[in-house]
Amino acid sequence: MARVAAIIGGGVVGAGWAARFLLNGWDVRLFDPDPATPDRVGAVLARARRALAGLGDVALPAEGTLSFCGLISETVTGADWIQESVPERLELKQTLFRKLQEHADEGAILASSTSGLTPSELQAGLSDPGRILVCHPLDPVYLLPLVEVVHSDKNHPDLIDRARDTLAELGMFALRVRGEITAHVADRLQEALWREALWLVRDEVAQVGEVDEALRMGPGLRWAQMGPFESARIAAGEEGMEAFLRRIGPALNWSRSKLTEVPELDPALIARIVEQSDDASGHMTLDELRDQRDRTLVALLRSLSADSRGAGAVLRRRDKARAEGRAMPRRIADLADPSQPILTVDRAVPLDWLDDHDRMTGARHLEAFGQATDRLLEILGCTPEYIAAGKGFLVTESHIRQLDAAQAGAPLRICSRVLGAGDGRLHLWHEMMSGARLLASAEHLLEHADLDTRQTCAPDPALAEAMRQLARAQARTPAPEGAGRVRPG
Amino acid sequence: MARVAAIIGGGVVGAGWAARFLLNGWDVRLFDPDPATPDRVGAVLARARRALAGLGDVALPAEGTLSFCGLISETVTGADWIQESVPERLELKQTLFRKLQEHADEGAILASSTSGLTPSELQAGLSDPGRILVCHPLDPVYLLPLVEVVHSDKNHPDLIDRARDTLAELGMFALRVRGEITAHVADRLQEALWREALWLVRDEVAQVGEVDEALRMGPGLRWAQMGPFESARIAAGEEGMEAFLRRIGPALNWSRSKLTEVPELDPALIARIVEQSDDASGHMTLDELRDQRDRTLVALLRSLSADSRGAGAVLRRRDKARAEGRAMPRRIADLADPSQPILTVDRAVPLDWLDDHDRMTGARHLEAFGQATDRLLEILGCTPEYIAAGKGFLVTESHIRQLDAAQAGAPLRICSRVLGAGDGRLHLWHEMMSGARLLASAEHLLEHADLDTRQTCAPDPALAEAMRQLARAQARTPAPEGAGRVRPG
Repeated sequence: MARVAAIIGGGVVGAGWAARFLLNGWDVRLFDPDPATPDRVGAVLARARRALAGLGDVALPAEGTLSFCGLISETVTGADWIQESVPERLELKQTLFRKLQEHADEGAILASSTSGLTPSELQAGLSDPGRILVCHPLDPVYLLPLVEVVHSDKNHPDLIDRARDTLAELGMFALRVRGEITAHVADRLQEALWREALWLVRDEVAQVGEVDEALRMGPGLRWAQMGPFESARIAAGEEGMEAFLRRIGPALNWSRSKLTEVPELDPALIARIVEQSDDASGHMTLDELRDQRDRTLVALLRSLSADSRGAGAVLRRRDKARAEGRAMPRRIADLADPSQPILTVDRAVPLDWLDDHDRMTGARHLEAFGQATDRLLEILGCTPEYIAAGKGFLVTESHIRQLDAAQAGAPLRICSRVLGAGDGRLHLWHEMMSGARLLASAEHLLEHADLDTRQTCAPDPALAEAMRQLARAQARTPAPEGAGRVRPG
Repeated sequence: MARVAAIIGGGVVGAGWAARFLLNGWDVRLFDPDPATPDRVGAVLARARRALAGLGDVALPAEGTLSFCGLISETVTGADWIQESVPERLELKQTLFRKLQEHADEGAILASSTSGLTPSELQAGLSDPGRILVCHPLDPVYLLPLVEVVHSDKNHPDLIDRARDTLAELGMFALRVRGEITAHVADRLQEALWREALWLVRDEVAQVGEVDEALRMGPGLRWAQMGPFESARIAAGEEGMEAFLRRIGPALNWSRSKLTEVPELDPALIARIVEQSDDASGHMTLDELRDQRDRTLVALLRSLSADSRGAGAVLRRRDKARAEGRAMPRRIADLADPSQPILTVDRAVPLDWLDDHDRMTGARHLEAFGQATDRLLEILGCTPEYIAAGKGFLVTESHIRQLDAAQAGAPLRICSRVLGAGDGRLHLWHEMMSGARLLASAEHLLEHADLDTRQTCAPDPALAEAMRQLARAQARTPAPEGAGRVRPG
């Protein structure tokens, strides 16, 4: 039987919580007197369904039921978890918790999304203060894993554990905050950065967009995969954290930022940092840390590159410029001898394409062959502009032979041929080489179609002519060994 | 003819610059009196070759030549770009620049990696101050795109442009800093965060590892793809930036952090932020911003998940737990009827697997089929532990039919069959369904091999027996329609 989550407050955070619970199979009851709530929650839910469902490699459970309740009592009775995300006003929340305690089941967890108030403040004056916990998420709640779990000494350890277990089941990362301070941990870090950002804009050192770029192109990429202390550990290098901290200690007193209150890096604080850094990262050598960092940065940068986002746009621009500077044909007229195989991919093996045993998965082979197909189609005239108009090619059949392996960074070139064309169909052949070694081959059947309806349709005349022309020229060369494994039909 | 970069100082930053120039086809001359320099630079270069070569989708140019020089004069004469990365001491750098100017060619760019000093400070007392620029990178210089380009009013705009163009050719993002302040932009932001982090550790609110996790699981994921101002724009939502800033303004004066010096969010500053935010992000609606954010977060999270890094480890743990809670077989003994197809993948289509026209590339199909193959192999006993010992399966041939499409978030299940087994070979069949629709099928040939040498070898007896057993059971069911497209040989 599904567990029940009661969500009080249907703003961005409350709606995000509702989505997170619902998509993990909980029934959700939501209370918010604003009549626009169902629409607003619906919009968040639609986005969450698209994003969260395929995020992991295993399907979510069946979605729970969502209901909008008119009274707090009916929202809360029988619920296992009660999450309030009402406006940040202490008296409002205290009144709410008093009411929630009246109606909540005995074992229910009462959690607050507050970013600014402490558990002790929320618990003050309540009859059963130990049931109130702070569970502070970040927006979008259905995607970002962090939840800061903050407690007072009135909370029983079992309750805290139960809350953390539940959050973990929801796919979240429950960070247990060790003290009660406003803004907990993440918001304090964000706010410290935000203030410095405001100074930079105020003093005209950087504009708003430039501050954002500075992060996206630099420290943001660090902190997505490695926090400041682990980054410092690498920065310390062979010198070691302790010596590093002693050396940079004095620099904190320079007026590097507008921050005048500086913690003193005294021996006691240094010793603490060193010990905790060893606890967190000591299981890896410096080289292992650097290897991990590089591999993950490559993966992050390439994933940003797929949609040209953030630093990924930099990669894309560079790829474009480099391809233009290469002898890589972009249209049929560029082909010195159209009867010969065409160089469609000229790259190297990405660091994150190989597993621990240097195996490149078939998916990665196809990623490279897909690049080759796209290039060949562009040469024929099926360009991004053509595709934007709604027509293009669908691959219907692929045959891949995986023959040999290559190392990360090794050259990887693909030469491609048109084995046949007609009736809107294309029969393509690719060979992937690293130096003189044949790594893999691919044979594809493609059909020209309306991309929205997926119905086959005739290519535009110029494209059809280019297909005919190239197929005819390439037919002069004998079929490659290994071809004939798809059925042109 | 290759351009020449002169690198003064072979520490982490200097070596990183050397790698960045070298791998982009420049000849590099490096000067550093430390005899350990060639080894140290060699180590950075090895790492850079593995990481940078395959980062983009287009191969880098042929690597340039690297030479270690004993004299500054020979390092610098004839160089087009001269980058100093010596220790952060003003007098040392000023002395160095005086010497560099003696020997540098007239058109050469003289750049400093300094993080703390300003161009004016570096230029003071030099005969030709306008040639000195600050180009401050982040470590690893061969991967992180950000370079902060800082100039004084003595630098000619043409020089600044030339520097930025060169940096762009190297695949870097040249952020032109509008003022001369120590630590420029990125380091000021990092340091603001670092100070708050030190306070948190000192006050025992969080340990070192916990601060790092707070970032990796939350704001770090934001800032890798969207800076604080664009994030604020989304947070402001329909209320709009101006009203949002006016509303939060007073909160900055609460003692949310240890930062006592707070810029006043007066109307002038608010107006500036609003205008610049519109400039940077106004071409997108709020929904478009949110859509992009979600899609990119999914891509980032999935890329972190592949290696179980940072927030990706959270996804992995959740997948594991969910799969264990499902009726998904994990070993042959779990199979209710071993003659039947086996459920090997039960997931949904990730948000970032589809292009604008909802096309799932063959590579993504194979990513899912690869997951199915891995699961089937695990059921047979070829587990991660088995593979860690150095043996496993290599896929030698794959045939994929792509038949129908699905939406992001749509269910995606794969059922798998063993069509044959023997002599260390496996013949597998997968069908990918979304609900009742057959989206794609895959047929694979695998060979058992030593993963380091790639030589075929006999599977361990238990694995061989499991292969025989399952193949025999599954042979009772007729071969699927569409199979027979690979040659078991």
